[in-house]
Amino acid sequence: MSLKLYYDLMSQPSRALYILLKTSKCNFEQKAIDLRKGEHYLEEYKAINRFQLVPAIDHNGFILTESVAIIKYLARENLILESLYPKDSKLQARVDEYLEWQHIGLRLHCAMYFRQKYMDPILFGHTPDPKTLEGYFKRMEKALENFDTKWLGNGTEYIAGNSITVADLLAACELEQTKMAYYNPADNFSNIAKWWKKVREHFNPYYDEAHVIVNKIINKQAKLKAKI
Amino acid sequence: MSLKLYYDLMSQPSRALYILLKTSKCNFEQKAIDLRKGEHYLEEYKAINRFQLVPAIDHNGFILTESVAIIKYLARENLILESLYPKDSKLQARVDEYLEWQHIGLRLHCAMYFRQKYMDPILFGHTPDPKTLEGYFKRMEKALENFDTKWLGNGTEYIAGNSITVADLLAACELEQTKMAYYNPADNFSNIAKWWKKVREHFNPYYDEAHVIVNKIINKQAKLKAKI
Repeated sequence: MSLKLYYDLMSQPSRALYILLKTSKCNFEQKAIDLRKGEHYLEEYKAINRFQLVPAIDHNGFILTESVAIIKYLARENLILESLYPKDSKLQARVDEYLEWQHIGLRLHCAMYFRQKYMDPILFGHTPDPKTLEGYFKRMEKALENFDTKWLGNGTEYIAGNSITVADLLAACELEQTKMAYYNPADNFSNIAKWWKKVREHFNPYYDEAHVIVNKIINKQAKLKAKI
Repeated sequence: MSLKLYYDLMSQPSRALYILLKTSKCNFEQKAIDLRKGEHYLEEYKAINRFQLVPAIDHNGFILTESVAIIKYLARENLILESLYPKDSKLQARVDEYLEWQHIGLRLHCAMYFRQKYMDPILFGHTPDPKTLEGYFKRMEKALENFDTKWLGNGTEYIAGNSITVADLLAACELEQTKMAYYNPADNFSNIAKWWKKVREHFNPYYDEAHVIVNKIINKQAKLKAKI
């Protein structure tokens, strides 16, 4: 069996897949693609993913993109822990419901704010327009509020019920991204704060291992802020 | 067995589910939710879908939202034709890959242009800002170009290979929406034009049945244009 994971630990779904495979004790070949060096734009990688994004997998020659599609494939191939993506039809439907909602319900808004506030100034050297940024911020806060009240705060321990699943892992990795954009959702949303801690603990030591670079950036920012 | 579908034929994924169930000869109770009358905002519907969106299903008391999650659930419950959502792991992965990509890759951009160009002027009575609209238009055209070249035009008959699947149905229903915003993707993208015709023919008479209201709007617009 040969499984290759193409990833960059700066990418949220890449981290989720990395943690998922490590937690499931699944052997895989680590194929790091450095987004900051533009390695995803190389012709060699275009042959793996025509959209030139991470993550992607190569399983015995079968190449697949899109993190959610990858998770489902790995589950069918029995390469990840069943408890994290249950086979029971109704339980699986509850996980799927979140996985489909999150694309536009949460991910889009967190990622766009991260891009505007953190990435674009680095890549293009400009300060974001305050009015535009405010719009992105409001949409992110609304998405986080929906997540906090409509997915968490429903009386269950985790997103899809009382058991932890890939839905929690994907969401947790998504939220980490906002911290690099100088915003910590746990400061404003109590259900998120409580749930996030449990998810991190469950997936440790791999959760922290996958967030080493992200945490370095966050700590560096905190130190700079303390100096001002 | 009791299956209820909550839908509005003005909603793209609602139409896809309607056509899918009809094509699969699956009996279901039609629960029309009129978005234009704001029926999705009623407390009664909030109990079905806390996000107050369509479509949703109620299968023997099990309520589920999110069209892609619903399709997968219906497939596991053997309520839809297996050929449209194959059980084979790799074939299913190819369908999933598109279903996950389309949220932000295609649907977001087509839906946002439709909203800016067609819906918001009706709902709020204002003419869209030309510069803002141009931005939405460009993003939609880029998304359509990606769809035309990277999902179609790969030498296969359909999105996920040489067999028609739910991926094609979902995409076709999505594109119909843009026609109401005075834009026909088939005029500019040859792979789309060729593929779209085949999808419509495959799913007829249900495809046209689900698009009666959409087509009425498009025809009315064409008549008004001819008069000018």
